[in-house]
Amino acid sequence: MAWNRVAVVGAGLIKFGELFEQSYEQMAADAFSAATDNVDLGFEPAQVEAAIVATQRGTLWGQEGIGGNTIPSAIGLSGIPCTRVENACPSGSDAFRIGAMAVASGVHDVVLVIGVEKMRDKSTEEGLLSRAASGHPIFTRGETAPVLFAPFATRHMHDFGTTREMLASVAVKNHHNGALDPYAHFQNEITIEDVINSVPVCHPLHLLDCCPQTDGAAAAILVSAERAEQFTDKPVYVAGFGVATDHPYLHEKTSYNSLKATQMAAERAYEMAGIEPSQVDMAEVHDCFTITEILDIEDLGFVDKGKGGVASLDGETSLTGRIPINTSGGLLAKGHPIGATGVAQLTECWWQLRGEAEARQVEMRNGYALQHNVGGRGSGVSVVNILTNQKP
Amino acid sequence: MAWNRVAVVGAGLIKFGELFEQSYEQMAADAFSAATDNVDLGFEPAQVEAAIVATQRGTLWGQEGIGGNTIPSAIGLSGIPCTRVENACPSGSDAFRIGAMAVASGVHDVVLVIGVEKMRDKSTEEGLLSRAASGHPIFTRGETAPVLFAPFATRHMHDFGTTREMLASVAVKNHHNGALDPYAHFQNEITIEDVINSVPVCHPLHLLDCCPQTDGAAAAILVSAERAEQFTDKPVYVAGFGVATDHPYLHEKTSYNSLKATQMAAERAYEMAGIEPSQVDMAEVHDCFTITEILDIEDLGFVDKGKGGVASLDGETSLTGRIPINTSGGLLAKGHPIGATGVAQLTECWWQLRGEAEARQVEMRNGYALQHNVGGRGSGVSVVNILTNQKP
Repeated sequence: MAWNRVAVVGAGLIKFGELFEQSYEQMAADAFSAATDNVDLGFEPAQVEAAIVATQRGTLWGQEGIGGNTIPSAIGLSGIPCTRVENACPSGSDAFRIGAMAVASGVHDVVLVIGVEKMRDKSTEEGLLSRAASGHPIFTRGETAPVLFAPFATRHMHDFGTTREMLASVAVKNHHNGALDPYAHFQNEITIEDVINSVPVCHPLHLLDCCPQTDGAAAAILVSAERAEQFTDKPVYVAGFGVATDHPYLHEKTSYNSLKATQMAAERAYEMAGIEPSQVDMAEVHDCFTITEILDIEDLGFVDKGKGGVASLDGETSLTGRIPINTSGGLLAKGHPIGATGVAQLTECWWQLRGEAEARQVEMRNGYALQHNVGGRGSGVSVVNILTNQKP
Repeated sequence: MAWNRVAVVGAGLIKFGELFEQSYEQMAADAFSAATDNVDLGFEPAQVEAAIVATQRGTLWGQEGIGGNTIPSAIGLSGIPCTRVENACPSGSDAFRIGAMAVASGVHDVVLVIGVEKMRDKSTEEGLLSRAASGHPIFTRGETAPVLFAPFATRHMHDFGTTREMLASVAVKNHHNGALDPYAHFQNEITIEDVINSVPVCHPLHLLDCCPQTDGAAAAILVSAERAEQFTDKPVYVAGFGVATDHPYLHEKTSYNSLKATQMAAERAYEMAGIEPSQVDMAEVHDCFTITEILDIEDLGFVDKGKGGVASLDGETSLTGRIPINTSGGLLAKGHPIGATGVAQLTECWWQLRGEAEARQVEMRNGYALQHNVGGRGSGVSVVNILTNQKP
């Protein structure tokens, strides 16, 4: 396919955590500032032609009647087009893709993507119970996120001999990386024993197998590739992306050993980028639970199916491993403020591709970084974005 | 700006109304069928490469945990990329614009846009009260939609001598048109006296000055212009579009006589299309209240500022008038199922441009039709799309 190429010339995020004292608008504004501050040759806010805002919970629990179109006023850009993109856990990564297509279309030359989420203002229990009470088709049956992912863990253990230690090793690695990331919600090291001895949530997932509830915001500035050098000497380009949906209910799945949406999204992204999985230097993937990262690295083609647990325990996905995964700390340690998550993952990829990831920097041999989310009812949607520092 | 051109080769909607017996997924599927049935030379569902779904209330009141990514499975297209776009009342029209950019980007050649909304499953009172109770910054103060628009009516009456009869004439005209539209929620004629004597809602707006709560769905099929003739001998093209945001609170407005977001969105759309307001043959505009249509036709440049009320009373906006407005019945008679509204308006424009609007057909001298929505907190966002039957 022929498409006009897109560059990322700025990206940034705010410190993730429990941000009760910050408003949604303030968080978005600070993420925007962080991204513009990171534009090497300077950036004027007035250069933004349009914005895409990712937020998932906003209209759910009454925090905001409107999800995205109040953001321009809050960040001093009232007037610009602004659209909210929502796509469950991949909301941020899909907003990035929509923003990239807005630039590729030739309609806008400079597009701001902001992801922002307040997860802590309302309790999960309050939200889920109210949705269940109002007849939600999954929550009425108690199918919360751990319940949806746990069967994949038990099946993986049954079929491939994956152990609780292997699951735990994902959390240990990501907490190690998070401890090196000044933006991570959790910055403490943990051990395999800590994970295994943490309170059970839904067998075989224990508390430290699960990502926390985190507030956060992140932003990225996309421009047409031909204008990239106006903003930076080290442009990062969008190499490709892919999105796939799947049937939303567990009983419709053909396998509990893989997430079909991720496999299809990855295939599309690799084809668009013209690369193989082996050419990816590092990846930020969706580790909402430890089992999810194991499924991801298999479904994205980094390790053979069934070998994700062993690869994690053996350190293949560590900062110095063959394919470093979730160098930022991932959802498990950095946190998972839904709309912000994908944009923050892309920021980490952007830093890695520019050699600016400091203590977390990994070797970038080929110049490709991959970002991935999966979510929705029963992992019903997945988004993969691939960035590169190679000029298209 | 240079952009790859986009054509609309199919569009359709379901009968709007109180659709308690239909699921959200069923409504989306039926709208998709309606659109494909209207593709002249035939259309296979498998030709859809990606979808954009507009829905606004879905995640608000617990009807749906996820807004759009379950739609492909429900319509037999599980696997395709699907993104939810939400932008308050203009959600459907903005989804259309995002779909058009996805095609213009060169990434996808055939994109399905679906708007779907269930407004009646939960009472307005229940939703608004729960949002107010949870601290919503506007609803806590009782600022529902009529309260946000009524001050524009009183100001317009004060400054320009607009009368209640003039306001009422908008509802009378749109009900007349709706009575000719087999898809309209209300298909009955009303009189100026009916409007004036209906129960007061928020002075000077009475019940028949307000659009109803309506369930509905609509769909459109967008393809790259160069492939249009594969699907139809009568393609309609996207001529241009514009979106603008404004400050969201009433106290931040610089005027109560116009909606700045609409003026800016229109200016951008006209510039992109390379036309003047006088070249528009008919328009579907956002008549959530009678005063809104009067503001719209002024802000879109069809009549001078202050003359919207007189123009309406004089019949300038009727089916045989100088600039026919809301030939479908508008939000006032056809209904306003939020995500579906913009896509249904575009379907009406598509029929008018193809000479297929039957009893509602108006004279299309220049071959341009305009679609408009405004909404969000304090009319904080507006979207304008312009369609044409003139090959670009």
